Order: sequence, then structure tokens, then C-alpha cells
Amino acid sequence: MKKFVNEPSQFVDEMLEGIIEAHPVQLGYCSNYKRNIVRAECKNKVGLVSGGGSGHLPLFMGYVGEGLLDGCAVGGVFQSPSAEQIYDITKHVDASKGVVYIYGNYSGDIMNFEMSSEMAELDDIKTAHIVGADDIASAPKGEEYKRRGVAGIFYIYKCAGAASEAGAHFDEVIRIANKAKENVRTIGVAFSPCTIPEVGKPSFIIGDDEMEIGMGIHGEPGINRLKIQNSDKIVDQMLDQILTDMELQNGHEVSVMVNSLGATSKEELYIIYRRIAERFAKLNIKIFHSYIGEFATSMEMAGASISVCKLDSELKALLSTRASTPFFEQRQL
Amino acid sequence: MKKFVNEPSQFVDEMLEGIIEAHPVQLGYCSNYKRNIVRAECKNKVGLVSGGGSGHLPLFMGYVGEGLLDGCAVGGVFQSPSAEQIYDITKHVDASKGVVYIYGNYSGDIMNFEMSSEMAELDDIKTAHIVGADDIASAPKGEEYKRRGVAGIFYIYKCAGAASEAGAHFDEVIRIANKAKENVRTIGVAFSPCTIPEVGKPSFIIGDDEMEIGMGIHGEPGINRLKIQNSDKIVDQMLDQILTDMELQNGHEVSVMVNSLGATSKEELYIIYRRIAERFAKLNIKIFHSYIGEFATSMEMAGASISVCKLDSELKALLSTRASTPFFEQRQL
Repeated sequence: MKKFVNEPSQFVDEMLEGIIEAHPVQLGYCSNYKRNIVRAECKNKVGLVSGGGSGHLPLFMGYVGEGLLDGCAVGGVFQSPSAEQIYDITKHVDASKGVVYIYGNYSGDIMNFEMSSEMAELDDIKTAHIVGADDIASAPKGEEYKRRGVAGIFYIYKCAGAASEAGAHFDEVIRIANKAKENVRTIGVAFSPCTIPEVGKPSFIIGDDEMEIGMGIHGEPGINRLKIQNSDKIVDQMLDQILTDMELQNGHEVSVMVNSLGATSKEELYIIYRRIAERFAKLNIKIFHSYIGEFATSMEMAGASISVCKLDSELKALLSTRASTPFFEQRQL
Repeated sequence: MKKFVNEPSQFVDEMLEGIIEAHPVQLGYCSNYKRNIVRAECKNKVGLVSGGGSGHLPLFMGYVGEGLLDGCAVGGVFQSPSAEQIYDITKHVDASKGVVYIYGNYSGDIMNFEMSSEMAELDDIKTAHIVGADDIASAPKGEEYKRRGVAGIFYIYKCAGAASEAGAHFDEVIRIANKAKENVRTIGVAFSPCTIPEVGKPSFIIGDDEMEIGMGIHGEPGINRLKIQNSDKIVDQMLDQILTDMELQNGHEVSVMVNSLGATSKEELYIIYRRIAERFAKLNIKIFHSYIGEFATSMEMAGASISVCKLDSELKALLSTRASTPFFEQRQL
């Protein structure tokens, strides 16, 4: 296993110790529990909490910070955090204005966030659930509720985070989070697997000349395993799926995210982006802003995902505000 | 070759088209030559110009922007840009206050930057050369002038960039760039090779259980090929080399960079950082600020480098200023 790892069982905790050691001004542990990460300073606003398995940095905990999340429950590699973790963070960030949970559509996460809600209710803390389900490869149109949550959750964080930071009320933050959720779609392609430290071998097998379109960020099966093609052809197949699913039209405005799953280089992400820009220009779909880099990874997996978020003036304004975490910096656009 | 690539010969140009398409407000081409990247707006200040081969993003051109570089000549993958490119950018950024070249210690780059200087001299543009040579694995102490330039060049960019942006004169920018250069050391370790698109096969062979300490960012031979060890042991060997070379002492203050060479995950970088922080705490070496992520890559190579920059109050202040490029955002520290 070609990784920087000591005891595999300590992978997550040592990583978090490194993170808190490196960024003490911005982040802290909640209740001294080392897998509960919160902003160093509590804010008097609607709380935003996420959570999920490790191995996807900067997802999930990398978005804890100004203009984004208030706290994040960190699970083992590709494992859900516990309900107790989520509940602990909920109490910590609650400013009597409600706490909105934003997480991906995975059964373990759903169960534990719902259990935390029940515990919080006994403390009179109101909670709401926004379940990211942007991966169009994971279930067909009409069954959106079955789709997995992947990189597109960033848009929910960003828009809800901007609203919450600006003092929006609970119902308003929920409305905005849902609006971002409804308007984002993602599709990925995987070239190679990653290795979970405690397992020590690759999570799946794929041929030296193969790729899998639609594979999930934990190696869930995609929709098509094909021979590797040139970049524009791969991008076209991904975009065709997104365009069909979103019904994007002449004159629409979008934000585009090109996300490396880990090993894929920035150089390649821009070759992908070039094709997207070319296609969208022909369709007269305007790209308002693009995010190109690592936003939701699967450790050292090679591959990439494309997310498209359809914008209106409200979402544009929310997307444009400053945000700052140790893993993500954005100036006012 | 598991890469997003169309025609391998177009890899660099398509990547740059994607970059300019994505970031038109911040970056532009100089003289319509598509491998010459400059800030979209010229500044009335000492010009800072870099250049080097592609395949290392965000190095080199990713540092063109506010508080860092004014322009960058982009070469083919792992190939020097031409003297004509550098000269063209020099004329573009020159505001009659001189232009400082900051680049890595590679013979092709040296030759072409020197040739550009000669051409610029005929136009009465004064230039200076700061040659990054931070890789302690590439030549022993006492022969620092032979060392390759790697990730530590960031500190030269950052300090010289802050000085230039604040209006420092030519000689002052040179003094500061040299000071940063003298105070930074880097060592890397490689786990796996990368593939140059036009070559189509890995740049070197390394066993499934091997690593090479000191390998360069183009696959240049390191100082020791060993069986993979646990992370703390690898980090200790790297730090021991740095500590010996720098003569860091109780009470010194430093900035630390933990840089992924490409495929190595952020999770692992923080496991590396945790050990550095632990070792430095015991030695009473204070870490003022840390940079953890991708700063100088070798496309999809797995591995990491550690850079340490010894600080005084002047370098701290210069390191702390805001900087903003499409690839690097830093708020005032």
C-alpha cells in the first residue's frame, strides 16, 4: 500500500490531529471528541452541520468555516459518523435558531442524522435534513430520491452557508438549500481504484485500458465500463447525460465544477473544462463561475466528476459571497 | 495511459486554453502567444516573471496573480520555455522598474532566462535572476548552487511578490527574493512515477513496495531507494536531512509546506504534518504558518515533499499578505 500511513486503524484520527494542529485559529474539536470538527468560534445564526465518511477531503469537514458549515461529524474511511457525534455537534452549534443538516444520500448517514434529530428534539433543538442526491448515474430521472450525493453537495453548502451567514432564518436557509439541491447534477468517471488503509488492497479491479462512467466515490458501480477514449469524447458522454437530465437551454446560466477524484492532475481538469466551455458556448449556456480542482475525492482514485448548477439571480448572489476554510478560500466574486 | 488527453501533442495548449477560458478576469495571454500567461491587468511595479516546464501545476503559472507573479512562460511537459517567450513577457510586464526572474535551477531554464536578459538589455530593461535551488537531496551542503529548484520556490514567489506589490524597488525585491531563497529547504519522496502524455509510459520503474527519498519532480534520481515504511519513519528521515542542512535551533520560527506530488491524498498530507508538528514542538521550533496541499506536482506521481522556510519578522510579514490567483488564495494572516 503506497500511502503515508502509520497504524491503519489510526489513519482518521492522526489525519484529524494534523488538521487541528495546522489550523487551530479556524477549527477546533467539539467536546474534546476528536472526530467532531467545528468552527473555532460559535456564531449566532442558523447552524449548518454535515457529516460523512473520511477519505473524500476536502469533503466533508474541509467545508467547515466562514460562509460554509459550522460543524462536521467525521466517520471512518467510507463509514458514517455516529448519531452521537452528530447530536453532540448539533448541541454545540445550536444558537436557538435551528440546525440544518446537509449530507449525502447514503443509508448509514440518513439513519444517524435522523437519530440525532430525535435526540435534538428532546432538547427543543429544531433540525432539518437536506439530503444531497446529485449523482445522475446512480438512478434514472424520476427516481432522483435514490441518487447518491457526491461533489455537487458543495453548491448546497455554499448557498445555504451564505444565507445562514447573512442571518437568514431557519425556513429560509432550508428553502435555499433545497433550491441549490434541485438545481445541481453531477456525473463522474473513474480510471483507477483507491485503497482503504484498513483493507490494504484496491477497492475494485479495472483494466489498464478501461474506465467506468458513473462510478460512485466509494467505487459503487457506474453505468458503463468502456475502453479509455480521448478526453473530449469522455466529456461529451458525461455532458450529454447532464444536459438530458437538467434540460439546460439556450440562455441558461450555470456554475461548473470539474473535480479530481484524487490522482487526476490539474492539467487534465483544465482539458476537461475546455471542452465543457466549448460545448456550452455553442448551446449559449453561460458559465458564471467555475470551480476546478479537488472538491470531493476518493483518496488517490484517478478520475473526475463534472457538476453543473443551474443559477438564477438569487443563487448567483449566494454563490458569490466570500468563504474561507483551511481547505477552501473564495473571495467575493 | 489513464489520462484525460486528446492529441498528446496538444496537451499543454489545450490545458492553457481551459485555464484562460476559466479565469479570464485574472489571466490573459501575452501578445496572443498561448504559452505566455500574464496577469490580465498590468501593474506599475517591479515585474516578477517565472517559467518552466508544464506538468507541475500549480507550479509555475498557477502563481501568476495578485501578490505573486506578473507573468509566466510555459514550456512543454517537463521542458523549458523558450528565450523568446520569456523576453516577450519581460517586455509586457516591464514598467521601467526592472524585471526579476525567479525560476528553478535547471540548465535549460537558466540558458533561456539568460538569453532573454540579453535581449531585454538591448531594450534597456534591467533584469535579475533568482534561481531556486531548495532540493537538499540533489547536492550536498556546500554545493547548494548545484541543487534543483522544487516546491520551495513558492516562498521566493510569495515574499518577493509581496514586496513588489507593496512598491519595493528593484534592488529591494532582489534582496528579499534572495533572502527567501537562502532560508528555504525541501526534500521529497516518490512512491510512483507519472506519465508524460507524449511519451505514453511511466517515467521510471519502482517496485510495488518501494519508495525513493530525494527523487526530483521530473523523476531525477534520489538519495535512497527503500522499502516503504510507516509514515512517521519516512517523515523522520526527511526531517533529519532538513534539520541537519538548515541548522534549525530552539526558538527558531518557520513556515512548513507539505506538498503532494499529485496522487497523494490530503488525508495523508495531514498525517505527515502531524509528525512534523510533533517533532518541531519537541525542538521548540515554532510553526508560524503551514501550507498543506498541492503546490508543485509531477502530474499524477504519488509522493510528497516537505519544505521548511526559516523566518524572521521581515519574511513573516511578507508571507502574511493577501495573495490571489486562480490556483492560490491566501487571506491576510
